[in-house]
Amino acid sequence: MKLKDIGEFGFIDRISRGCLIRPAGIVKAIGDDAAAFRSDPALLNLVTTDLLIERVHFIRNAADGYSLGYKALAVNLSDIAAMGGTARNAFVSIAVPQDVTLEFLDDFYCGIKSLAAEHEVNILGGDTTGSSVDLVINVVVTGTVAESEVLFRDKARVGDVIFSSGCLGDSSAGLHLELNRIAADTPYLKTLLEAHLRPKPFLREGRLLAAHGGVHAAIDVSDGLSSDLGHIVRLSRVGARLFIDRLPLSPALQQFCRRFGFDPVEYALAGGEDYALLFTVTPSEADAIARDYFTTFGQSIHRLGEITDSGKIELIDGRGRSRVIVSTGWDHFKKES
Amino acid sequence: MKLKDIGEFGFIDRISRGCLIRPAGIVKAIGDDAAAFRSDPALLNLVTTDLLIERVHFIRNAADGYSLGYKALAVNLSDIAAMGGTARNAFVSIAVPQDVTLEFLDDFYCGIKSLAAEHEVNILGGDTTGSSVDLVINVVVTGTVAESEVLFRDKARVGDVIFSSGCLGDSSAGLHLELNRIAADTPYLKTLLEAHLRPKPFLREGRLLAAHGGVHAAIDVSDGLSSDLGHIVRLSRVGARLFIDRLPLSPALQQFCRRFGFDPVEYALAGGEDYALLFTVTPSEADAIARDYFTTFGQSIHRLGEITDSGKIELIDGRGRSRVIVSTGWDHFKKES
Repeated sequence: MKLKDIGEFGFIDRISRGCLIRPAGIVKAIGDDAAAFRSDPALLNLVTTDLLIERVHFIRNAADGYSLGYKALAVNLSDIAAMGGTARNAFVSIAVPQDVTLEFLDDFYCGIKSLAAEHEVNILGGDTTGSSVDLVINVVVTGTVAESEVLFRDKARVGDVIFSSGCLGDSSAGLHLELNRIAADTPYLKTLLEAHLRPKPFLREGRLLAAHGGVHAAIDVSDGLSSDLGHIVRLSRVGARLFIDRLPLSPALQQFCRRFGFDPVEYALAGGEDYALLFTVTPSEADAIARDYFTTFGQSIHRLGEITDSGKIELIDGRGRSRVIVSTGWDHFKKES
Repeated sequence: MKLKDIGEFGFIDRISRGCLIRPAGIVKAIGDDAAAFRSDPALLNLVTTDLLIERVHFIRNAADGYSLGYKALAVNLSDIAAMGGTARNAFVSIAVPQDVTLEFLDDFYCGIKSLAAEHEVNILGGDTTGSSVDLVINVVVTGTVAESEVLFRDKARVGDVIFSSGCLGDSSAGLHLELNRIAADTPYLKTLLEAHLRPKPFLREGRLLAAHGGVHAAIDVSDGLSSDLGHIVRLSRVGARLFIDRLPLSPALQQFCRRFGFDPVEYALAGGEDYALLFTVTPSEADAIARDYFTTFGQSIHRLGEITDSGKIELIDGRGRSRVIVSTGWDHFKKES
């Protein structure tokens, strides 16, 4: 069976199944001009959206449909996590060229619905249309958060401890494997490819951080540590100091770099799409947050450095020498083609 | 100056100006991981989204940037109108190929901001990225409506009067001019091209209808009368009877059809993108609604026919003869390329 056999409305019927995961408060889901739902009046509404274009953000034949759907939702959930919020509803739009199979699309929605169910997120609508060449995906996620707990990028203060909730550089190493068609034939290479294809959204972790108190600023690492810390530093009008021997380098990334002759520090600083939370904490709460986080999730957070008043990001090596790093993250318009 | 000279973040700074039109209740606009705002707790939240792809929904060189931005927002506002809602916040995402000029993009955002200001809609976020070939636009609009007033597609009842808030077929005639590069060299051709490039969103009109009471079902005409009435009929499990001599054919469409030898009835039935509101009203309120609408807006609504229990859409000609019409509106996946 092909997409053109079932048509747009048959396709919408097909993807609508299993979308209403949390029906309370939902008055109209997929199938009208707009979705209609109640919000908790005591909470702020959050909205985030990401546009994913074939050959810019993903390679259709390199990624299975399931992973593509999973990641398209994950990157938006990650934005809600970085605000300290709870994700509530998703809207999935897709523009489909004629050579995309119905099986690929079924896998795509399966990946989305699986991650949505894990985080109790409804899929309440979207748009379905054709495309001449490239597969195009847009996902919108709404969320909520108490106004007293919301985490912004621009609230870092001098003296704050800088933490990351996960390792950095793994996704970028996975992308290297994908682009160069290097088979993930060992467990550590599989780990890196997995980090790239199915990044973990730190939603529950973001909620703990927001509810704990003492977290001043947060962002998710999408463009790369230097670039995303750059956003915090610029918007908060502060500086930062990172310690090279505290960068969270996974054993998989270290093995990868040894094998292919790369510098893991460069991967950690410039590699994007890890979707770890990067956050700054008032020093008096830093130990308590690290302890509560470990107790709750069985994982450590990584203490990378501290917020300064220097107006720049400095990297301190093992001998105490400092160099200023510039944001090397992704700029979609400045890149050379 | 070119887009690559100012970069993605320079571009975001540039487009962020003039986006916060209605600041009350907005806690975080453009510039963080997600937008954060308060909703009125007494109201339902509405969310709609449209994905627009070059060469599928628009021809980049045929449409000026201003009209493209205007229409991208208008089609989403129209969805909120068809729910009886008030539009509140917009999120604009754009994927830009390298050959798009900064001037075109400035015009695009000017068109969006101009229409947003007219309807007191904030632009609170979005996504900016590159694209390999096609310009891609995604717009999301949130709105609110009282739960007692929200208008759905599936609530039409047998005996309801069917109304349209505007003429039908004009936009499709304008598209014909655009596709065939026919110069709009007379006022009536200009009217048709304008209807296609800058459709009016019936937001204030939708609010009046929702607040009045007696309106059972509503949809906006995006795919064409037969297709969109088909959605109401199918979802409400009813039928409909349309009278051929009551179809709202503009003088401009009639002149166009005489000149080029087309049937205006076919344009009214199958032509999409008019974005008039199509709604069904309990018979006892039909005259009162038509009168209030005229008093408020100085425009008439058009009485097209009535809801039946036949399960199909019948078209009645001037001699009382009936023929069944099938939905001939747009299906993005079934179309032949």
